Amino acid sequence: MQNNISLTWAQKMQAHFENCFTQCFDENFAKQDTHPNLANAMRYSALNGGKRLRPLLVYASAALFINMHTTNNPNIPDPNAFDSNSDSNLDVNLDSYASALEMIHVYSLIHDDLPAMDNDDLRRGKPTCHIAFGEASAILAGDGLLTLSFNILADANMPDSLKIALISLLSNCAGIAGMVDGQMRDLMSENKDISFATLTTIHAKKTGALIKASILGGALCAHAQPQDLEQLAIFAEHLGLAFQIQDDVLDVTSDSLTLGKTAGKDATQHKATYPSVLGFENAKQAAQDQVTAALEALAKFDERADHLRDIARYVINRKY
Amino acid sequence: MQNNISLTWAQKMQAHFENCFTQCFDENFAKQDTHPNLANAMRYSALNGGKRLRPLLVYASAALFINMHTTNNPNIPDPNAFDSNSDSNLDVNLDSYASALEMIHVYSLIHDDLPAMDNDDLRRGKPTCHIAFGEASAILAGDGLLTLSFNILADANMPDSLKIALISLLSNCAGIAGMVDGQMRDLMSENKDISFATLTTIHAKKTGALIKASILGGALCAHAQPQDLEQLAIFAEHLGLAFQIQDDVLDVTSDSLTLGKTAGKDATQHKATYPSVLGFENAKQAAQDQVTAALEALAKFDERADHLRDIARYVINRKY
Repeated sequence: MQNNISLTWAQKMQAHFENCFTQCFDENFAKQDTHPNLANAMRYSALNGGKRLRPLLVYASAALFINMHTTNNPNIPDPNAFDSNSDSNLDVNLDSYASALEMIHVYSLIHDDLPAMDNDDLRRGKPTCHIAFGEASAILAGDGLLTLSFNILADANMPDSLKIALISLLSNCAGIAGMVDGQMRDLMSENKDISFATLTTIHAKKTGALIKASILGGALCAHAQPQDLEQLAIFAEHLGLAFQIQDDVLDVTSDSLTLGKTAGKDATQHKATYPSVLGFENAKQAAQDQVTAALEALAKFDERADHLRDIARYVINRKY
Repeated sequence: MQNNISLTWAQKMQAHFENCFTQCFDENFAKQDTHPNLANAMRYSALNGGKRLRPLLVYASAALFINMHTTNNPNIPDPNAFDSNSDSNLDVNLDSYASALEMIHVYSLIHDDLPAMDNDDLRRGKPTCHIAFGEASAILAGDGLLTLSFNILADANMPDSLKIALISLLSNCAGIAGMVDGQMRDLMSENKDISFATLTTIHAKKTGALIKASILGGALCAHAQPQDLEQLAIFAEHLGLAFQIQDDVLDVTSDSLTLGKTAGKDATQHKATYPSVLGFENAKQAAQDQVTAALEALAKFDERADHLRDIARYVINRKY
């Protein structure tokens, strides 16, 4: 992040989310009497120090709509002040949604790492789920996370209308209109010359859709108005592209130790990427351009959008 | 089915569901601009002549609560008379729920057939999804079906409270409290001596949970009262066990051509089954006993339960 204040906010929110996420698994596994091998495989992949970018986006997006009079310093929406807002359940709703969303992200990584998919044995610096637990358990752990994601939203303590809006958004972005379709398009593009437009579609679906679900879902929890949601959708599209282009760039420039996953995989697998299609310097510029466009989409918002702005800058300054 | 009237009802409902299910895919793939390879893999596995037992259970369970005065013959609840009931959306709600449920069943078969799981190359008499489309596409087709299942419920034309009740029920029965947990327990029991109690738990979760979701979901759509749901849950538990025991029995006695999937797999994979634990004749008797108990659980219901009764008898008389 860009400065100490924001670093503190992001660190606080990451720590807060980590607690919620851990507790969510503990409670569900205990309640459901889940087999230890299934519970362990799911926890292993979910609770291993991810960046938690998507949960941070949920909280940062909701912060845009917090009544600033409830915080001592209007420049720093206090994440713990959510419950003094007009919606006393906002903090709990955000935690539930952030957990559901991160579960879908984690399941997608588990399945993506499988031998039949990217065949990766390193993730976040540790053996991937199928290396640690075997392929069959990894497939089931992914299926379990995806299903649990919708289960915790259905059983959350929210109004039914909000639950339905979030489940609709998330299942739309994660499924055949978004992430799963993007992964299929990615798969189908291997070893092929694809156009820049096709590459952008793949990136938007594979990575962008879930980033959009994070930003719009956080805003929905905080009762955002339709015109704000439209503006945030534009922000999300640019941010998602910036994030994926930076992923492509890091795959070329970084090493496996820093990335926590195998570097140089795109070239080995003959995947079309921004660097391979545009050239390396143009790809870096494209990521910067997307961040600039993302920030422009936030222009109408006041300083409560600073967390989103910080995350946008972080996305292309990150090293892993 | 047992007689011509019921055969006609089941055949009618199967044909009706087949139309709905096909249309559901057509509409969603068109709306979402899904990649043809993903759409084809999902359609290939979903629209290949399955028995549609779970959708039939949805309709049969709802038929219990239909106002008989709306049909010409009180012994034959007319599936087309649903819309003359007090809830004019009942038929549409049942179609949506039956489609969502069958998608989850189909996804579970695709993932279960994968090389890392049961490694089966035959399903319903055709090459399994990963044989026809490759492993990566099969994994994604399964993920797509599971996600679409919750998406169509969230976007269905039902009251939010009913959507949430169905999503909660389905995600509970399909996930770490039900089917996925049962598959993990099944996996963990391979090549092990397990107790009869453990085997029953595996069966109840692996197969029984989704059968329970069918029966209770149909009843929820038809505004069943809590005491009726309790009674139907007992029926569902016995029916689920009968179904899985019969699956075990058929795996021993039948051939691959009849079954449409590889026969004799349980022994090859050293899986604990009712025949292997109880002996063959005792297993057949256990299936019969479960059907008897299932029928007893329906004793308080009138002739509108006849479709459920017919399905219960069919479950152990079926040849595949």
